[in-house]
Amino acid sequence: MRIALGLEYDGSAFCGWQTQPNGGAIQDVVERALSMIEQAPVRVQCAGRTDTGVHASSQVVHFDSGVKRPITAWVRGVNAHLPDQVVVRWAREVAEDFHARFSATARHYRYVLLSRDVRPAAASGRIGWTHWPLDLDAMQSAAALLVGEHDFSSFRAAECQAATPVRTLTQARVIRAGGCIVFEFSANAFLHHMVRNMVGALVQIGRGAREPNWITELFEARNRALAAPTFSPCGLYLCGIDYPPGLGLPGDGRVRGETFEGLLT
Amino acid sequence: MRIALGLEYDGSAFCGWQTQPNGGAIQDVVERALSMIEQAPVRVQCAGRTDTGVHASSQVVHFDSGVKRPITAWVRGVNAHLPDQVVVRWAREVAEDFHARFSATARHYRYVLLSRDVRPAAASGRIGWTHWPLDLDAMQSAAALLVGEHDFSSFRAAECQAATPVRTLTQARVIRAGGCIVFEFSANAFLHHMVRNMVGALVQIGRGAREPNWITELFEARNRALAAPTFSPCGLYLCGIDYPPGLGLPGDGRVRGETFEGLLT
Repeated sequence: MRIALGLEYDGSAFCGWQTQPNGGAIQDVVERALSMIEQAPVRVQCAGRTDTGVHASSQVVHFDSGVKRPITAWVRGVNAHLPDQVVVRWAREVAEDFHARFSATARHYRYVLLSRDVRPAAASGRIGWTHWPLDLDAMQSAAALLVGEHDFSSFRAAECQAATPVRTLTQARVIRAGGCIVFEFSANAFLHHMVRNMVGALVQIGRGAREPNWITELFEARNRALAAPTFSPCGLYLCGIDYPPGLGLPGDGRVRGETFEGLLT
Repeated sequence: MRIALGLEYDGSAFCGWQTQPNGGAIQDVVERALSMIEQAPVRVQCAGRTDTGVHASSQVVHFDSGVKRPITAWVRGVNAHLPDQVVVRWAREVAEDFHARFSATARHYRYVLLSRDVRPAAASGRIGWTHWPLDLDAMQSAAALLVGEHDFSSFRAAECQAATPVRTLTQARVIRAGGCIVFEFSANAFLHHMVRNMVGALVQIGRGAREPNWITELFEARNRALAAPTFSPCGLYLCGIDYPPGLGLPGDGRVRGETFEGLLT
């Protein structure tokens, strides 16, 4: 029986999603907790691997179970074996050909950035920071240039293993929310470090070091070395995955995380 | 020379504000960092002592310095010696008779509560949680009854050392903000555990276990044992202190913390 799970986690205490020899990855703690309920080793596949320090309000995984358990056991039972920073939001039985990664049609990321003179403390580890004042209009103009099908070589980590640097960004929004600036990106798939590299470029534009059309130059240059440094992982959240409708998933496939708009620290 | 500082902190890693023999209090790390700049021991006084696990977006402290330093040294220099979870937002030279605690005319607290079936993870330690669905209207009606001058004995910790249980609550708001419910309280001063005990009572009313007028009964009973359990510290933030105008403080004495409304994890 194949089961899909919705996960939420604070990535600041983990060395990323992907399993590590030292067991310090989110995948490791999730697999250990599932194994307690399965009473046998469990291997999970995720929709989007997150890097060290990156969070998720809506990660999706699947695994195969050979035991009969009430579906709630995969939520409450597993949560009892997970650390405070990781929780299962929901569990659903899915078809045998469902795949958390390959069935996904889109991913949604959000980057939360604090722009002020001193570093964050109340939200340390869970929010990005720049001491530069930022021009929202300039960043919005630049973000509009990111949307569409492009060669994202200038925004791709050297170690990226994707077969092609071409991706289709369907959304790139920049909004002010209280004391923060929030960047929202949607795409069919993302390259390694792509969101953090786009945020890095937008911050350079927002602080006035570059013009919005620098984005176009970077697309043409196809050269990571010309772009901005990779921005901190602290403010990055995987916040939604899209699947085709009719698979029995929450939101009929438009899987979204909680938005804690009340977290006015 | 007397100096006032504005502090922001994530209290989840500390055993409260007040100095501890093991040095694990927020006061301890702040005094150690100040001593590095002062090059001598420094003792600070705070506006409001926060309990273990309670956060502050706007704590105010004062201390006396015998050395000549540019005022920015008390921000940037001190921050270099503070852990990630604590930061100095600002520093101001104040009159010798200024006192962070005794000069304050009001305190403002905010409680951020997540109401859903599973515990928080992305915001673990920084948000309160109840699995009960909550009736916002009922909690708002009850909160209105809390406002005014009352004997708060039913909302006061057994170990509270205040001379009188009478306090004047000038504001008690309950608002929905995204997936969260936010409680906002203002008073001249608060008793020990008073905010967490008020939140506990409002949650009982919100889940329908009590009627809003239970608040009136609790005021009359003056009996802590009849009220709700003290709510978790995780969602509590000291978010503002009021001082008389003209003292040279930020906001001309209405000192407020950052609101991270963008932290939609």
